[in-house]
Amino acid sequence: MIAILKNGTTDEQTAHLVSWLKQMNLDVHISKGAEMTVLGLIGDTSRVDMELLSSLEIVSSVKRVSEPFKQANRKFHPNDSIIQIGNVKIGGGYFAMIAGPCSVESEEQIIEVAQAVKESGANILRGGAFKPRTSPYAFQGMKEAGIRLLLKAKEATGLPIVTEIMNISALDLFTDVDIIQVGARNMQNFDLLKELGKTDKPILLKRGLANTLQELLMSVEYIMSEGNENVILCERGIRTFETYTRNTLDLSAVSVLHELSHLPVVVDPSHATGKSRLVPPMAMAATAAGADGIMVEVHNNPSCALCDGAQSLTPAQFDDLSHRIRKVREAIV
Amino acid sequence: MIAILKNGTTDEQTAHLVSWLKQMNLDVHISKGAEMTVLGLIGDTSRVDMELLSSLEIVSSVKRVSEPFKQANRKFHPNDSIIQIGNVKIGGGYFAMIAGPCSVESEEQIIEVAQAVKESGANILRGGAFKPRTSPYAFQGMKEAGIRLLLKAKEATGLPIVTEIMNISALDLFTDVDIIQVGARNMQNFDLLKELGKTDKPILLKRGLANTLQELLMSVEYIMSEGNENVILCERGIRTFETYTRNTLDLSAVSVLHELSHLPVVVDPSHATGKSRLVPPMAMAATAAGADGIMVEVHNNPSCALCDGAQSLTPAQFDDLSHRIRKVREAIV
Amino acid sequence: MIAILKNGTTDEQTAHLVSWLKQMNLDVHISKGAEMTVLGLIGDTSRVDMELLSSLEIVSSVKRVSEPFKQANRKFHPNDSIIQIGNVKIGGGYFAMIAGPCSVESEEQIIEVAQAVKESGANILRGGAFKPRTSPYAFQGMKEAGIRLLLKAKEATGLPIVTEIMNISALDLFTDVDIIQVGARNMQNFDLLKELGKTDKPILLKRGLANTLQELLMSVEYIMSEGNENVILCERGIRTFETYTRNTLDLSAVSVLHELSHLPVVVDPSHATGKSRLVPPMAMAATAAGADGIMVEVHNNPSCALCDGAQSLTPAQFDDLSHRIRKVREAIV
Amino acid sequence: MIAILKNGTTDEQTAHLVSWLKQMNLDVHISKGAEMTVLGLIGDTSRVDMELLSSLEIVSSVKRVSEPFKQANRKFHPNDSIIQIGNVKIGGGYFAMIAGPCSVESEEQIIEVAQAVKESGANILRGGAFKPRTSPYAFQGMKEAGIRLLLKAKEATGLPIVTEIMNISALDLFTDVDIIQVGARNMQNFDLLKELGKTDKPILLKRGLANTLQELLMSVEYIMSEGNENVILCERGIRTFETYTRNTLDLSAVSVLHELSHLPVVVDPSHATGKSRLVPPMAMAATAAGADGIMVEVHNNPSCALCDGAQSLTPAQFDDLSHRIRKVREAIV
Repeated sequence: MIAILKNGTTDEQTAHLVSWLKQMNLDVHISKGAEMTVLGLIGDTSRVDMELLSSLEIVSSVKRVSEPFKQANRKFHPNDSIIQIGNVKIGGGYFAMIAGPCSVESEEQIIEVAQAVKESGANILRGGAFKPRTSPYAFQGMKEAGIRLLLKAKEATGLPIVTEIMNISALDLFTDVDIIQVGARNMQNFDLLKELGKTDKPILLKRGLANTLQELLMSVEYIMSEGNENVILCERGIRTFETYTRNTLDLSAVSVLHELSHLPVVVDPSHATGKSRLVPPMAMAATAAGADGIMVEVHNNPSCALCDGAQSLTPAQFDDLSHRIRKVREAIV
Repeated sequence: MIAILKNGTTDEQTAHLVSWLKQMNLDVHISKGAEMTVLGLIGDTSRVDMELLSSLEIVSSVKRVSEPFKQANRKFHPNDSIIQIGNVKIGGGYFAMIAGPCSVESEEQIIEVAQAVKESGANILRGGAFKPRTSPYAFQGMKEAGIRLLLKAKEATGLPIVTEIMNISALDLFTDVDIIQVGARNMQNFDLLKELGKTDKPILLKRGLANTLQELLMSVEYIMSEGNENVILCERGIRTFETYTRNTLDLSAVSVLHELSHLPVVVDPSHATGKSRLVPPMAMAATAAGADGIMVEVHNNPSCALCDGAQSLTPAQFDDLSHRIRKVREAIV
Repeated sequence: MIAILKNGTTDEQTAHLVSWLKQMNLDVHISKGAEMTVLGLIGDTSRVDMELLSSLEIVSSVKRVSEPFKQANRKFHPNDSIIQIGNVKIGGGYFAMIAGPCSVESEEQIIEVAQAVKESGANILRGGAFKPRTSPYAFQGMKEAGIRLLLKAKEATGLPIVTEIMNISALDLFTDVDIIQVGARNMQNFDLLKELGKTDKPILLKRGLANTLQELLMSVEYIMSEGNENVILCERGIRTFETYTRNTLDLSAVSVLHELSHLPVVVDPSHATGKSRLVPPMAMAATAAGADGIMVEVHNNPSCALCDGAQSLTPAQFDDLSHRIRKVREAIV
Repeated sequence: MIAILKNGTTDEQTAHLVSWLKQMNLDVHISKGAEMTVLGLIGDTSRVDMELLSSLEIVSSVKRVSEPFKQANRKFHPNDSIIQIGNVKIGGGYFAMIAGPCSVESEEQIIEVAQAVKESGANILRGGAFKPRTSPYAFQGMKEAGIRLLLKAKEATGLPIVTEIMNISALDLFTDVDIIQVGARNMQNFDLLKELGKTDKPILLKRGLANTLQELLMSVEYIMSEGNENVILCERGIRTFETYTRNTLDLSAVSVLHELSHLPVVVDPSHATGKSRLVPPMAMAATAAGADGIMVEVHNNPSCALCDGAQSLTPAQFDDLSHRIRKVREAIV
């Protein structure tokens, strides 16, 4: 870490600051120039409060040289992590095709969708049981019953399942869930992350709507520093001024996260765009960008002719997408 | 709520949609024009899933006529809500001067700061015991011990206290806390909000970094619909592309929230700007904009000469600000 | 266009508004419900000032049913436009591979790069002669001399050239330029757009850093309504809170623009990401998303070993990318 | 300027970089530590291309120590600049009350409004003659005729006038205009800025919708480096995800610009919020934040009863606001 001191800083002030930094077990190299003094901080700077340091009267600016995240850092773990879920692998060349309905609604629905997406090549089933909703008056999911139905679909198809947790008090219900999802709104629910770090379940951590990629990796650090190394990152769109799509899918996140971290990265184009017709091109683009998987919503509601244009793909649309993704993957290897 | 159907929608499709809407206990008025068909939905539309409706193939767009929030809505509660905390009131002309350190660090520190800010006119003491931090390696607050020290400061000065909760499992520790703060990162931690709705504690709810004002009021709805009407809103800056300030303080939020809701609105310029020298002008601006209070960080650390320029004001700076705010308040009434 | 009137609007107020709207040659259908009155405006609503209408005291909200852009609108021109530049075509299945240096620096440089990228499959040469720079002290380009060198490179290789115009007074210099580029900062320089609309040159119009896709199409309207139909759209990243990449490349723009408009869409991953190592994956992703072309920076500076990691690709890196893009294109057809 | 080199940079690479930097007339101080090498660049670094330097393979990051703007920099000009317009002054304690209609519509309108706002205390008249509009089909202003009417209003009232220029070719029409406004969309129309820098007219430069404060000051540099020192800065809202207000007014810009620069800063709450009822509280807040003036839209259209709720204030509302602003100003001195 580099701290640049303001012009006019006295020797006494510099000495004060250096002694404060040394109390944090840091070595400090002082480089005094004509126009500025630069302090080089050597040691474990991940514990230094960069904002506090920056805000000191005599400090002009502070710059990290090493990233503040460690466990997820590719520097200390050059090879891709491969996350194993039953006999499915994600990362390091293994591609996750995660599909399923937005919400679990009935046994018939979830089993039908599970069978359909499996047939088309999905290797993991998604389905919401606990649903975070902006409004308290909106459907909040089937909760415990929803998880039971997901487990039935898993039994029927052999597909491992991923579903979202909203509250650590519900953790017991997730014993047989294969991957626990943490949603965008909980990306910085640090207490929840810490508790999940004490389990050995694979965690699918979604990027928050206004969170930088570095903040995402710092949230991973909450999980991994507690001992759980099975983390899958998920880009699902960020909030910008553009209103035509629900969010703006940031596909450069795939490459950046691969550069900074060894963890697998999947992309959720359904939530990012909010429009089913944009899901296939964005899923293809994510694949071409090198994502380790995609996560898409698929529904099966033949009785509701109205729903055909909704955010979810039909099984037939997913089947078509699945073939096209395989072709893109063959083209890029 | 208005739903505009696409050109070319068949009568059968329209009939399907109308019957689906009627199942939700809505009256539907159909207005068929040459170029478009407009459905007017009458009844309790707060339960209608607007995103789902918008995403239907035959729907061109959907527009709410009435806001989806009710309990916090000024339409149904024209007078300003006044929140009573001991003998302090907020809202409806009563102004909250909330001050105190970022984190509680020691008994001496918190009592000294409490006495100083009280002397300068603060009527509520703030102080962090549980600290949400981007990094798991950063100081996470004194937790339970911090709350005990805040209670000592309350005893010593008579000031009611406000401190942040991060996890519902810690609720028991907040029995004697006067106002429970929900931080920006937890604004959409819906399970936490619901539990706080079951208490009768005043809740200070901060706007999330990427949340619209309507989303803030929907989060209030999670608290109020459970029975707790004592909610104080807090604008603390949103995330934008500008990096000179930590966040961008959105002061028009004060007027907009007063227009939409009857709840009091306080402003936190310390977290919004991240720079102590910007705190006084922004606190003055917030006051002139009609805020019901301000919340600022004040530290007292004579041994650390270095800290003078940090995000927090010194007691002397706060004293000066306090006098100037009083003058602005006199000017605007 | 739909205008929803507020509850409590009097009949007289409504009549006033209706007569004002009729003065604009619009038909107005009034649909009066119990809770709201809806006005349906029929006719050429592209001339209605939506902001003014929305801001009227009695108007609750206004909603466009038809898009405000016409010339670029796919509704009135269902087939893809194909832009012809010499013997190169863009759009409707024809893919533009646009490559070249950020700035033209010398005859040797531009000809060498032009030959190299042509060899690798580029069909259009890019190069900056007039450079918009944040700082007046930064290199502003070779200007007129730069254009002359581009024309030499065109002569040497047969590649058509694209270069940026910053000021209408320079238009004479662009007589032999094949495609005139309007940069992101000038996307809403309406006087410039209008003048370019009076020419018959193909215009490559870049999306502004904070402009919506609808605003981009409205800017196209400035060009097309003057008679020039040869417009190529370019997504080059938008400004968000994320700072790791220079901008955030919004690839869903490709699909959305194809949906709304018949014009070709190319993607510039070099400016979007600002990092050469992110250019290939984003170029591949753009291709998989269905872009009609990509535009990348390629430099050739063997004497400057330092520059190898800069934003531009080397000719060898471009050659590799070019092969991989061809494979992705084969996979998606 | 500080450049931090990556670990593993060879001595030869470092030597290459240093010699390249020295060619730019910079002194380079090399500070080699165990974990990193820091180069301190001394001299006129405003001409160094920071993006290029950052993008070099061996460079980890680059940090400016001194700001890249000079003419507008308070460091080299500690006292507030006072801009003189006829007998009106702005800055250094002098407050500009700029008011007038969005667009000039007729002689009667502009003179009536001018007289009304003058009576209420306005000291500068605003009015649009050239109007930048998102749509080519919207009213583009009265242009030359509009300027003539503004000059009549100036004659009638003695108020100096400010109006927007969109194109340098119209400069001749601005000979008798007192302040030339550059709108948000043209903040980075560098050729326009340079031409205005060659005049001695006061320039009111609005911040772009997606531009940082540093970019605003760099655009000022384009004007001032050509010799024109009469620049007034204007904050008018930035584009964020919030859609309730048209833009998000960033009032901390007032303090930040005062800190970084000696130039006066005015605030335009009309364009920022887009809603007349938000204009008074935001104008008061701007005043309390220390702005050197406000710029508000006032219309006078007694025949159009409908327009009462539009973005503009009525003369009566402006009169009330004007009194309240004076009281806030008295409170803060």
